[in-house]
Amino acid sequence: MDSFTATTARMPELRAQIAQHPEQFRVLTGERPTGRLHLGYYFGTVRERVRLQGLGVETFVVLADYQVITDRDVAGNIRENVYAAVLDYLAAGLDRRSTTIFTHSAVSALNQLLLPFLSLVTEAELHRNPTVKAELAASGRALRGLLLTYPVHQAADILFCKGNLVPVGKDNLPHVEVTRTIARRFNERYGYVFPEPAGLVTDAPELPGLDGRKMSKSYGNAIALGMTADETAAVIKRARTDSERTITYDPENRPEVSGLLATAAVVLGRTPADLADEVGDAGAGALKRLTTEAVNEFLAEHRARRSALTIED
Amino acid sequence: MDSFTATTARMPELRAQIAQHPEQFRVLTGERPTGRLHLGYYFGTVRERVRLQGLGVETFVVLADYQVITDRDVAGNIRENVYAAVLDYLAAGLDRRSTTIFTHSAVSALNQLLLPFLSLVTEAELHRNPTVKAELAASGRALRGLLLTYPVHQAADILFCKGNLVPVGKDNLPHVEVTRTIARRFNERYGYVFPEPAGLVTDAPELPGLDGRKMSKSYGNAIALGMTADETAAVIKRARTDSERTITYDPENRPEVSGLLATAAVVLGRTPADLADEVGDAGAGALKRLTTEAVNEFLAEHRARRSALTIED
Repeated sequence: MDSFTATTARMPELRAQIAQHPEQFRVLTGERPTGRLHLGYYFGTVRERVRLQGLGVETFVVLADYQVITDRDVAGNIRENVYAAVLDYLAAGLDRRSTTIFTHSAVSALNQLLLPFLSLVTEAELHRNPTVKAELAASGRALRGLLLTYPVHQAADILFCKGNLVPVGKDNLPHVEVTRTIARRFNERYGYVFPEPAGLVTDAPELPGLDGRKMSKSYGNAIALGMTADETAAVIKRARTDSERTITYDPENRPEVSGLLATAAVVLGRTPADLADEVGDAGAGALKRLTTEAVNEFLAEHRARRSALTIED
Repeated sequence: MDSFTATTARMPELRAQIAQHPEQFRVLTGERPTGRLHLGYYFGTVRERVRLQGLGVETFVVLADYQVITDRDVAGNIRENVYAAVLDYLAAGLDRRSTTIFTHSAVSALNQLLLPFLSLVTEAELHRNPTVKAELAASGRALRGLLLTYPVHQAADILFCKGNLVPVGKDNLPHVEVTRTIARRFNERYGYVFPEPAGLVTDAPELPGLDGRKMSKSYGNAIALGMTADETAAVIKRARTDSERTITYDPENRPEVSGLLATAAVVLGRTPADLADEVGDAGAGALKRLTTEAVNEFLAEHRARRSALTIED
């Protein structure tokens, strides 16, 4: 049984424990501020954070500004992205009384943990990390020190606040393993300081982009949470569809139409197939109108809260 | 012409520049607080720092506490070693008005530079570093992340204070090269921020220990600057000598006697051969008495200043 299967098998018990004793858990989660939060990220990640907070679990969210340059040379609009992410989090329901949102650059003590933690792992162990391997291949560049060591930096994220619960997709489980190893070795060497965190595998299905590919800012197929209703309408209007009039849900052969259906379905809480039946012969134009309305209605409250926060500020 | 030869060739010009425009230079230097500062370190390193300060060069001295665990698991008495080193520096003449002595752990912003700097070097470049290779071989362990990345941390030491002059032995020249590379790449990518520091190769001959081997706390052959006169007498008394009565200076064949001669010579400003002639047939006992007196006289003022500082505190 591999690590992922083993972790997944423990999930029902872990979820029950969290529900029963939320005060025993502290979540560390976060992401790199490389762009705006979008609808796929909301359903895949943000919603789960809000849910955990709602259970009474204290949460730390790191906006990993120092890690933006892990796979690129240009840092981009980190400041604006951080600001937008904080607005989206607060608008989505994260509460600053129980959730701490911070950047790496704002908590220097966290980054210092990199030093002792680097002494606890060998280069060979860093090299074996599957996520490092995958991101290295994707970057198409020589392996930089920052990419090689970033699981150790992630261990610092998790352990600096003594986080013991880390929501992860399958891709990030190896990081939690590195963190557990570092915590264990540190405790063995210097006495007990850090908990060995558990990975909480989130089972939210991934929402595709408007074109059926992975939703990504760089593909232009994403609806950012902070878009206006008009911007949303425009990006959906621009979405490509195929020449077949009757709308059917077929992600394999009709990715564009199916991407639109999946988007409308997730915000309406219905199934894509059901929506496809409803649109039927009305065609792609009708599907786009339906999707636009559904998304804008779903995001109306978020946007109102977001804009109230902007004005407050 | 290799890097060392090239750097050495530039030294006379660099030294002239420093003497003429000390205000254009800022020194970063330091060491790991793994033990007490000893006589060899005074003549090899501390004296040069005091000299540079005397020329009017602003100096930063890092006591690299986070790096103690680069090649060992146990941190040891870092706090006591740091405290003793600061006393020795002040007693030796470093002036807190123009010289800043600090630990890594006290300046968190310095350590944060590790993050962007790690993005500027490849793993292959880190791996090629001759000092990393040598220390890896000496450690007899698998390569840890901290040893692999420590030239980058050293670059952070040098560049955080915009140091442009780094006194080095031949061993440390590759670090200065790494630092120059990092400064250059950072400046190219983000605009000019950091100077490219020059290595100032110190030509002080290495003082051997009392047994003729490398002077090292762990060999028990070192006279710590902070020892009392009695402790100094005791450590010299314990020093092994050979069975030949007539004292001659012959480092190859008579390392112990020659170690004592070298020690007495350096503090008296004379040559070991000259001292050997003076002791002649009086034997090892006389040599030890002469060495003890010479060292204790040389260190008397240092110790008086050191103890005044201790009492002040």
